[in-house]
Amino acid sequence: MNKAVFYHAGCPVCVEAERKVAEAIDKSKYSVEIVHLGESKNRLPEAEQAGVKSVPALVLDGVPFHINFGADLSALK
Amino acid sequence: MNKAVFYHAGCPVCVEAERKVAEAIDKSKYSVEIVHLGESKNRLPEAEQAGVKSVPALVLDGVPFHINFGADLSALK
Repeated sequence: MNKAVFYHAGCPVCVEAERKVAEAIDKSKYSVEIVHLGESKNRLPEAEQAGVKSVPALVLDGVPFHINFGADLSALK
Repeated sequence: MNKAVFYHAGCPVCVEAERKVAEAIDKSKYSVEIVHLGESKNRLPEAEQAGVKSVPALVLDGVPFHINFGADLSALK
């Protein structure tokens, strides 16, 4: 199973992206995890290591895709 | 069937996003169309009307999501 992680921070841009994009992912191909980086700050290093610069972002098999723009990661530290 | 349209322009950022993101979409929920706006300039007005500002972009049920950044739409005119 491939891994998809959707990082967000609860802002309106993130919530809309989360709802539409995360739900559009094929659950037979990907196990989808949704991480709220504002609440789970301990996941920030992992997100940064994957190349996430801003949220919302979707990481598919370790490859980061920044979706629209909600907040810079630095704003969540 | 919901409609997903992936707009790109053939640049490396677009091609990577196309491959990973378009393939991750649940085909049982969405009919996925891939549009190369550099080659199909006649689709530009439709993309703009959906709110697409840059490529690559994914439009899910009419809602635009800009994925990373390849090129501004104005560069394709």
